[in-house]
Amino acid sequence: MTTVPVNASKQYEIVIGTGLMDKAGEYLRRVTKGDAVMLVCGDIVAGLHAPRVRAALEQAGYRVEQFVYPHGEQSKTPETYFALLNALAESGLTRSDTIVALGGGVTGDLAGFAAATYQRGISYVQMPTTLLAAVDSSVGGKTAIDLPAGKNLAGAFYQPSLVLCDLDALATLPEDVFTDGCAEVIKYGVIWDAELFDLLGKGIKDQLEEVIARCVTIKAEIVNKDEFDNGIRGILNYGHTVGHAIEKCSHFGVSHGSAVAMGMVIVAKAAALSGICDEGVFDRVLALVKQYGLPTKTEYEPKALLQAMLSDKKRAGAKISLIIPEKIGAVRIEKMGLEDMNRFLRPVLEAQTWM
Amino acid sequence: MTTVPVNASKQYEIVIGTGLMDKAGEYLRRVTKGDAVMLVCGDIVAGLHAPRVRAALEQAGYRVEQFVYPHGEQSKTPETYFALLNALAESGLTRSDTIVALGGGVTGDLAGFAAATYQRGISYVQMPTTLLAAVDSSVGGKTAIDLPAGKNLAGAFYQPSLVLCDLDALATLPEDVFTDGCAEVIKYGVIWDAELFDLLGKGIKDQLEEVIARCVTIKAEIVNKDEFDNGIRGILNYGHTVGHAIEKCSHFGVSHGSAVAMGMVIVAKAAALSGICDEGVFDRVLALVKQYGLPTKTEYEPKALLQAMLSDKKRAGAKISLIIPEKIGAVRIEKMGLEDMNRFLRPVLEAQTWM
Repeated sequence: MTTVPVNASKQYEIVIGTGLMDKAGEYLRRVTKGDAVMLVCGDIVAGLHAPRVRAALEQAGYRVEQFVYPHGEQSKTPETYFALLNALAESGLTRSDTIVALGGGVTGDLAGFAAATYQRGISYVQMPTTLLAAVDSSVGGKTAIDLPAGKNLAGAFYQPSLVLCDLDALATLPEDVFTDGCAEVIKYGVIWDAELFDLLGKGIKDQLEEVIARCVTIKAEIVNKDEFDNGIRGILNYGHTVGHAIEKCSHFGVSHGSAVAMGMVIVAKAAALSGICDEGVFDRVLALVKQYGLPTKTEYEPKALLQAMLSDKKRAGAKISLIIPEKIGAVRIEKMGLEDMNRFLRPVLEAQTWM
Repeated sequence: MTTVPVNASKQYEIVIGTGLMDKAGEYLRRVTKGDAVMLVCGDIVAGLHAPRVRAALEQAGYRVEQFVYPHGEQSKTPETYFALLNALAESGLTRSDTIVALGGGVTGDLAGFAAATYQRGISYVQMPTTLLAAVDSSVGGKTAIDLPAGKNLAGAFYQPSLVLCDLDALATLPEDVFTDGCAEVIKYGVIWDAELFDLLGKGIKDQLEEVIARCVTIKAEIVNKDEFDNGIRGILNYGHTVGHAIEKCSHFGVSHGSAVAMGMVIVAKAAALSGICDEGVFDRVLALVKQYGLPTKTEYEPKALLQAMLSDKKRAGAKISLIIPEKIGAVRIEKMGLEDMNRFLRPVLEAQTWM
């Protein structure tokens, strides 16, 4: 078992280990005041893990209510959010009670935003069940839902009281979902931690606790420095600017991890071509992404991708931040206008055959 | 012109004076970064004051978008909130832009909650146009919308960047709306400031700037001590526990100020009967409430009122905080169960004839 502290506007712990779902009650007792819990999960997790967590909470004396929604990003809507708020009200949850988010990124974002806003804020606990949620979305307090105009447009910075990451839950993940999370893990190696990058060359499943602990330690350090995302927190978006454009062009048919993987490879190549990093950095990123079975190139037209990147920016002269590797373990943030972005990325996007 | 500083999690100023709507642009420039503003107001204020504020903002170089909704509490809903968020997205407002809430409490609560959550938080400025909003809801960062299950159930603690209180706007208020706000003004006298209470005996309109400044100074001091409403901030609810019950029993046909006025009188009488304060305290509260043309007694049955007070509390043994005057300028907070509440209030509720 590993414990990683977070010192943001609220202090809390990330606990990583096995058998934690069965100890959920005793862990919650350490951080909550009230006696009622709303357990939030998607319909798949409701069958897989919720009974175990529920039993543990009830054994610790909690009254447990449950909110189950149809899994997937298409549920991260105003409708589901208000259904959850109404369920909280109807269950009589008070300001001293707690929400438990058991699931992947959608559950954490949705339940976290409900916690941030129900009665102007109640406590919540993240119990990630995907690798992506474990290393990324469950830590750092970004909560949100999607609007018709775009993803994550309504939300709050609101830290959980505890993150419980049970490796037992990750063991039940379908292979492609697990692989998807590996893209974010590789990202931490490139942006911050060359040792982690090397470690990943030896595989991940036999050293999962250490890998997750390293990832969340990095994220905690970055969040401690820039909780409200006005500076260095931006480096967590390495691979994401191009990745989001790929997701958009695919109408979200390409998974987040696959899109980020392609984004990381494309930007690494552009960095090498521009002389910001050595060609060897690109080679190593490409090799590791391939080793993890993640895709390395996109079929979309450069023009379509560049347009997708700029579609959020309605005003002339708007700039986009791009995270560019200088070496394995270090990146820089560059603000680019449309022209710069075009010059930097188009040669790579047009010549992806060599990937 | 008077300026009152607030030192909550965010520092900002409350400016009270005449002609401030025409200076909105220059004041905004001091506290905002971006160049776009979403001006939010109800349909009445849209005709009365919005053109003046809009012109001032445009003169200072802002691109001004406008969101107008049908005025009144019935618009403080998830539907209006999401319509506003979508308008922000469609207007291309970024994280460095600003919302201006021009109006009464509904506008401030709604626009403030949208500011708290659009892209996880953008800045907003309160420009109260009612006395109630000027002395109460525009200061302190409580934002919210109503849910089917109850008022203000979804919201956030989120401080504005500036409060601009233009006395010119208050001068256009219908007499009954102005009177409604006087209830909250009297409240500040009872809970905190005997001098203010005395001052109010001489009327309010000729000394409006001083009275508002005193009220918001008190509110700022209380918010500085207990921003997230876990302790002393509760004293701002003097008259509100009984008042909310009256509003509920009337299906919100009785105005907030009228209900709070009755609540203050009823609790002051109960306090006198219980020996917590002298009968003279009750006499003075009653006299001042009458002087301002506010109602002093309710027609609703004691049983119905007590039930309405407890209707939010689903669990057995739940307690309600009641704010009780000890003298003019000082109150105590008492936590009471149903039985205590019944013992304390029923004799007064049953014998209102002498009011």
